Amino acid sequence: MSGPLRLDSRDPGFAAAFATLVDARREADEDVSRDVAAIVAAVRANGDAALADYTRRFDGHDLDTTGWRVSDTERKAALAGISGELRDALELAADRIRTYHAAQRPADSDTVDAAGVRLGARWGAVEAAGLYVPGGRAAYPSSVLMNAIPARVAGVDRLAMVTPTPNGEINPMVLAAAEIAGVDEVWRIGGAQAIAALAHGTARIDRVDVVVGPGNAWVAEAKRQLYGVVGIDMVAGPSEIVVVADGASDPAWIAADLLSQAEHDPTSQSILFTDDAAFADAVAAEVLAQIDTLATGATARTSWTANGAIILLASLDEAPPLIDRLAPEHLELAVDDPAPLFARVRHAGSVFLGRHTPEAVGDYVAGPNHVLPTGRRARFASGLSVLDFMKRTSFLSLDERAIAAIGPAAVALARAEGLPAHGRSVAMRLGTQASGSDL
Amino acid sequence: MSGPLRLDSRDPGFAAAFATLVDARREADEDVSRDVAAIVAAVRANGDAALADYTRRFDGHDLDTTGWRVSDTERKAALAGISGELRDALELAADRIRTYHAAQRPADSDTVDAAGVRLGARWGAVEAAGLYVPGGRAAYPSSVLMNAIPARVAGVDRLAMVTPTPNGEINPMVLAAAEIAGVDEVWRIGGAQAIAALAHGTARIDRVDVVVGPGNAWVAEAKRQLYGVVGIDMVAGPSEIVVVADGASDPAWIAADLLSQAEHDPTSQSILFTDDAAFADAVAAEVLAQIDTLATGATARTSWTANGAIILLASLDEAPPLIDRLAPEHLELAVDDPAPLFARVRHAGSVFLGRHTPEAVGDYVAGPNHVLPTGRRARFASGLSVLDFMKRTSFLSLDERAIAAIGPAAVALARAEGLPAHGRSVAMRLGTQASGSDL
Repeated sequence: MSGPLRLDSRDPGFAAAFATLVDARREADEDVSRDVAAIVAAVRANGDAALADYTRRFDGHDLDTTGWRVSDTERKAALAGISGELRDALELAADRIRTYHAAQRPADSDTVDAAGVRLGARWGAVEAAGLYVPGGRAAYPSSVLMNAIPARVAGVDRLAMVTPTPNGEINPMVLAAAEIAGVDEVWRIGGAQAIAALAHGTARIDRVDVVVGPGNAWVAEAKRQLYGVVGIDMVAGPSEIVVVADGASDPAWIAADLLSQAEHDPTSQSILFTDDAAFADAVAAEVLAQIDTLATGATARTSWTANGAIILLASLDEAPPLIDRLAPEHLELAVDDPAPLFARVRHAGSVFLGRHTPEAVGDYVAGPNHVLPTGRRARFASGLSVLDFMKRTSFLSLDERAIAAIGPAAVALARAEGLPAHGRSVAMRLGTQASGSDL
Repeated sequence: MSGPLRLDSRDPGFAAAFATLVDARREADEDVSRDVAAIVAAVRANGDAALADYTRRFDGHDLDTTGWRVSDTERKAALAGISGELRDALELAADRIRTYHAAQRPADSDTVDAAGVRLGARWGAVEAAGLYVPGGRAAYPSSVLMNAIPARVAGVDRLAMVTPTPNGEINPMVLAAAEIAGVDEVWRIGGAQAIAALAHGTARIDRVDVVVGPGNAWVAEAKRQLYGVVGIDMVAGPSEIVVVADGASDPAWIAADLLSQAEHDPTSQSILFTDDAAFADAVAAEVLAQIDTLATGATARTSWTANGAIILLASLDEAPPLIDRLAPEHLELAVDDPAPLFARVRHAGSVFLGRHTPEAVGDYVAGPNHVLPTGRRARFASGLSVLDFMKRTSFLSLDERAIAAIGPAAVALARAEGLPAHGRSVAMRLGTQASGSDL
């Protein structure tokens, strides 16, 4: 078999080969924008009738028969139906995610400066948030917790979940997680039509202010098209991990870490940086050996072969600038003392420090969010947080002394910008009652 | 003349009329998406040659003759050329904006919890930011300060400004403001092609990570299309103000405040809420009287007539829920004690408290940002801040004890989600060395 890519920083062609790896696009260029625009327009025009129609066509069930909304009875039954071990695991995860995100709540400010100007900012939650949960393979209860809990911690009044239920069926683990996370409404709709319903509202479904959650190309395009009508979390792409490991690491552990990313999707990317050629070979062999034992082996093999890479460095000191160019969603630093490397990394979504911190522990129970920027977007974007469900109102208060102190400068600038009413509204409060022609 | 709209909350048709006001779209539905997509593709394919071509066609000058980049000499000359009064005003504004935004820098976190899990988050600036500055009427030095200073406070390495210079000419006030704000590069390009150049980079212009700043429909659409390739500030629409004033206010002051919004653009919106019918009439008369004295009167008259509104309430206590539906960019509470009203308002971009706090003082010198969410977007969006130029990296560190404490829950969830490599990567570190078939 071919792949994964093997590079050595000492080879003369390394810079060019690494640049190719950085620029390689793993995102599908499906042009669904016209289809999505038509779906959004139909939901806006015809509301619930359009939702019923698309659900019949795409998901194969009649919402009036299966029920538009999952009932409380179904939700409670789903939670009661999971094993005690699983329920405990979900509760532990929910508690830890809640605690981590509670610390993200921003502080308000309110101060008076030397000029007598009172200045501040007040944070508040959006009224309603919508959460998209995919059906089928990518329907993960952990993802429900990671998306819903920050909204609840932010203090949203209403949290509505939408999920396609092919032929009416819904993943009970997803329902159980929704129950634990405190989702208010669960609607049996999916696709671009569900995003349109959340953004614009229908007779049955009230509109929301922010839409989050992963989805396929149609869902992603609908979020992009409706960005501005609602807030959205981010533009998401295929998942990725960079693992930095020295020769003292266990090759089997590191192989499992690389495979935990590769098993997600054929477009996932797993990259190993190491300074030990024998270790690199051992990991490569371990990956192949473990793939054969995985139920997800076919996906993992495709991902590893097509997108995986093993990069041999003269020293791990070379890693940080290379990592910054990849700006990976996940970064593992599997060395005894990861601090010096971590201090030099600038762009990564989430970092896993030391030999006993596999990325997968962060996917589930550690606390930080697993919704993270992909596709080099950690250069400018952050993981999902409480801030995605809040907004800030700035405020200002001046008295006669304060406006006397700073008002004249505002009048001068307004005049220079050719905005006389701006200048006049300030000048009048200075007591100078300047005439229009002066401004 | 017709307009502005007059409503009374005691009229039977009020609810319907107010709903119409809330839903009225003032944004132009120019369909420029295909044109913009072509421009973006051309810049991506042909780089600087495409920029030179579009600049010749749209701005009427040859970049190789006028110069691609504004020289340091030109910039210093622009700063030296403005009056002392104006320079002092810009410096005062810059200092106050800098101070207000410095307080927005978020704190890092790094804690160890009872399970022995170390968790944290580290904030960092993006490497490079791009700032769009319109040419012509909307070229405001205050806007340069408001967009550039938060980037500098965030700590970006490089701040590149682009601005169209029709026939090669550039507003010296804008250049002076760029100099004061510490902009690194000023390029004589504008339109969608400038946004594409910032996002994708060309031979001459390095790409940036975040693009901010106002622009026309082409610029806005380019930002929307390139969102995800780069971070952007927001989707902007026409400006608006809501003024809440009681009968003790000076009608001339309030009229000037309404006009300070109306003079911006024919699509701007100024709305007065009051509980005093005679005051409402006095303000209406003052607006008309002042319009005739304004150099910007024609614009203000169109805006006020087409989009303005005077809403009479039985009591100002009725205002907060109505304000929340409008979610205005700017809100003035021109009463003696604005605190009770402010406490009940949930959605507004920026609030101006009391009789001596005209909105225009916030446009220039007060300190909070004047780049604010418009078109009802204060429901979910915030004004421009230091956070728009920063991103957060979460991190995690577990030792053997910590993974023993929380790892088993992760293994259980991974198994339930059908992701065996995830489970294995955690299980191996538990010392249980579970076989593939167990996972």
